[in-house]
Amino acid sequence: MSETNKDIVVAFYKRALFEGQVEDAFRLYAVPTYRQHNPLIEDGMEGVKKFVARIMANHPDARGEIKRVFADCDHVILHSHWHGLSDNPRGETVVDIFRLEHGKVVEHWDVIQPIPETSANANTMF
Amino acid sequence: MSETNKDIVVAFYKRALFEGQVEDAFRLYAVPTYRQHNPLIEDGMEGVKKFVARIMANHPDARGEIKRVFADCDHVILHSHWHGLSDNPRGETVVDIFRLEHGKVVEHWDVIQPIPETSANANTMF
Repeated sequence: MSETNKDIVVAFYKRALFEGQVEDAFRLYAVPTYRQHNPLIEDGMEGVKKFVARIMANHPDARGEIKRVFADCDHVILHSHWHGLSDNPRGETVVDIFRLEHGKVVEHWDVIQPIPETSANANTMF
Repeated sequence: MSETNKDIVVAFYKRALFEGQVEDAFRLYAVPTYRQHNPLIEDGMEGVKKFVARIMANHPDARGEIKRVFADCDHVILHSHWHGLSDNPRGETVVDIFRLEHGKVVEHWDVIQPIPETSANANTMF
């Protein structure tokens, strides 16, 4: 189940956030009542649509790259490098957590941190 | 393996960060050469020791609560609510990712976000 859930979440993420096809993404992979924990986004598909529209208006070149995908039963976790979620030229490190029920995404949490200019180690944040 | 790895990481996290016993935590659960991706922390046990000392000096009442634990093969992911990693009175939402080899923690990434005062939804960040 975990491997199938990874495929579902990666497809949902790419369709909704990389391609901006939020309605398509929800029709295929998520429930429209999707419970949202990102404090900038309202619940459900409409919240994600508004969020994507806002990102695209402020940062038309916003882009994300998925670095790692993990799954544990009904949860899938993505570790990604984004540009355009803030004005930071180095971009943001993001972890998204998704919960699925019956093969559909039903709930989302995330944590977003702008990448600082300097680091105490040579390993990058990824 | 995933369930054992969860136990190891939770024990490591509590011993090092909740109890401040960093040397004990590394002796029992991690390798001293631990690869660090948090940009505020140097590699290895010494980096974590300095970080914990700094947190305790600035925020003696710093405290974390683990909300969710996930594991996928050799990685364990913690979703936690902290107070005292910043001056934010609402605290921080944190995801830590750990990689293990042969039952010891060898690598660490994290993402930290101060919790904002208001939210577009009623679900909290957890």
